[in-house]
Amino acid sequence: MRDVSVIGTSQLPVKKRCERSIRTLGADVVRAALNDAGLERVDALYVSNMLSDELQSQKHVAALVADEAGLAGVEALQVRAATASGAAALRVAYMAVSSGLVETAVVVGVEKMSDLIPTPALAKALDAEREAPDGATLISQNALAMRLYMERYNVSADAFTHFAVNAHRNARQNPNAIFREKAVTADMVRASRPIVPPIRLYDCAPICDGAAAVVLAPTARATQFSDTPVRILAATGATDRFRLSDRSDPLQLQASHLSAAQAFQEADIERSAVDFFELHDAFSIMSCLQLEAVGFATPGCGWQLAEEGAIALNGRIPIATMGGLKARGHPIGATAVYQTCEIVQQLTGRAGPNQLTDPHIAMLQSIGGAATTVFTFLFGGA
Amino acid sequence: MRDVSVIGTSQLPVKKRCERSIRTLGADVVRAALNDAGLERVDALYVSNMLSDELQSQKHVAALVADEAGLAGVEALQVRAATASGAAALRVAYMAVSSGLVETAVVVGVEKMSDLIPTPALAKALDAEREAPDGATLISQNALAMRLYMERYNVSADAFTHFAVNAHRNARQNPNAIFREKAVTADMVRASRPIVPPIRLYDCAPICDGAAAVVLAPTARATQFSDTPVRILAATGATDRFRLSDRSDPLQLQASHLSAAQAFQEADIERSAVDFFELHDAFSIMSCLQLEAVGFATPGCGWQLAEEGAIALNGRIPIATMGGLKARGHPIGATAVYQTCEIVQQLTGRAGPNQLTDPHIAMLQSIGGAATTVFTFLFGGA
Repeated sequence: MRDVSVIGTSQLPVKKRCERSIRTLGADVVRAALNDAGLERVDALYVSNMLSDELQSQKHVAALVADEAGLAGVEALQVRAATASGAAALRVAYMAVSSGLVETAVVVGVEKMSDLIPTPALAKALDAEREAPDGATLISQNALAMRLYMERYNVSADAFTHFAVNAHRNARQNPNAIFREKAVTADMVRASRPIVPPIRLYDCAPICDGAAAVVLAPTARATQFSDTPVRILAATGATDRFRLSDRSDPLQLQASHLSAAQAFQEADIERSAVDFFELHDAFSIMSCLQLEAVGFATPGCGWQLAEEGAIALNGRIPIATMGGLKARGHPIGATAVYQTCEIVQQLTGRAGPNQLTDPHIAMLQSIGGAATTVFTFLFGGA
Repeated sequence: MRDVSVIGTSQLPVKKRCERSIRTLGADVVRAALNDAGLERVDALYVSNMLSDELQSQKHVAALVADEAGLAGVEALQVRAATASGAAALRVAYMAVSSGLVETAVVVGVEKMSDLIPTPALAKALDAEREAPDGATLISQNALAMRLYMERYNVSADAFTHFAVNAHRNARQNPNAIFREKAVTADMVRASRPIVPPIRLYDCAPICDGAAAVVLAPTARATQFSDTPVRILAATGATDRFRLSDRSDPLQLQASHLSAAQAFQEADIERSAVDFFELHDAFSIMSCLQLEAVGFATPGCGWQLAEEGAIALNGRIPIATMGGLKARGHPIGATAVYQTCEIVQQLTGRAGPNQLTDPHIAMLQSIGGAATTVFTFLFGGA
């Protein structure tokens, strides 16, 4: 096993609707990321996408994007883990380059949710035999967890308000974010319409289109390609019991906890060394539960980090520094690749107005389904 | 990078219809393969499946199978490359164990095509914007290639007859094959009804259900788990231009040729060292073109290997030794995992009545779409 670094990145602005097709969106970011790394070709192309089967009638995305990007010949495959697909693809690319079997790899996440109503396809992240027939969807499972949290810890839905406020504040100065226009206040969040109670509009990430790509190479060669490579210190994945109802405690995200603990061990660093945390804020309850599962807050207290401003850019553990899933946007299969691009921006001092002060270690966590699958990454240094 | 071996296998009999669900079929072969390797748990579970999005409303298969197999906690993800998905998953598992990041991994392929008519979902392996709107399907693209072959080399459809005869003969004594009852003669193949001309019924692999699993471990530790481990000597992937019509010669399978050449280089062996070849005989034209692309026959002469009996169990280059996709069956996402299990059977002397005489080196090739994606593997020794 050898060390692996990110040597190039590219992201398209997340939009409510991109006019171009997934082949073009994907190929564009692949070319741009290769260009960023000063590469003409790569050895492998790993694609992440969740919804193209239903929304674009396309089940062979990797070869399609490879061809459109002018890379026909290259090894290409698709990696999936429901809503954590981008992180799963990054994990595979990390293993590929780490093994020495692949020298350079591009990970491209692309999702176009605007072609059809994506909700039925998204619900297929759940158990089709034992959850979906009851009408369960990703949002209803998150609503279940949020209600249980509110009951157990005796807090109202308002406790989660500042996750959205923070994300929207950070998105405003990110040119790739979907929500940049409007300042979002705590009052607006609290007054927003119920979606699946207790989840309100501002507790949810939006449906959107986007594509992002990152290029990986062995750390030993990284400075040949980039003046500012960023090292992947750890990449881990874990699962929980599939259904919330099968878990002894649905508020303890075991896969989040386990993959984070393994990542800290793999990188040989303490949690306290993490300077910021790009987490999976598809729903505000998940931000709260991840902060608790990883250990940044004790159970029942995750929301207080938002309330107190500890998650802000100048706080103790900044999250969603470029807007997060909530306000940069959550084009599913592309999301964790966007997060990786943003981590590279932060660690290399290119985060613009949202730049953190001298961050060294970043954590990324991506969730598949109702916290059934979780991948965790640590990034840092050159 | 370290050497990787197969230390356990399991396959369910391929059937026209299995009553159980994909979670159960997948979990059963995972448990059986772990049992074969004497393992209770593994570090990672890589799933291959192509059609569950449409046929089972399930987009989170890896975690679902992991949970059902009692492996919750384990890293789990799904790998896809259309009809080559099983091979793509095996490639990922190979890289994972080779890297040292994963010690033991199970690859499980599961496909249940009987729940709905699978043809529309299968056609999504093609280009949804530029091929499918014309009514193109996987079979029509293969028919195009077959017609072109017949015209260029001035042969009739009868030239392909013995691919089916050979596959069916070999399936009859494989307890896991879907077609075991009936002896299939050349006359039957020639008289079979046209599907998409010039492709006839016996030129096509059947629609079916199945699941298979293999367990991988570092070669250095393989004999701890198995008395007869089988080493993976090479694992490579390549792509071609996506559409047949974009290729300078649709009868030259570039991805097949390229991935095979890379595999020979990686394993440092000559083509002549290959004792048998489990190829992707979803359509008889593909058997012919692969034999030519890899170099077992010159262009225009692949069918002669079938005619002359060179592909038979006692021939120069046996193919489909346990029935192949044509007659063992082609439960898409599981197919290359079945092929791996059969290669292990042959190399360890457990192929029953179909046992080859002392084979040392096996080749596996799996095709995604219209030969757009190809993965090649070489196996051999301990």
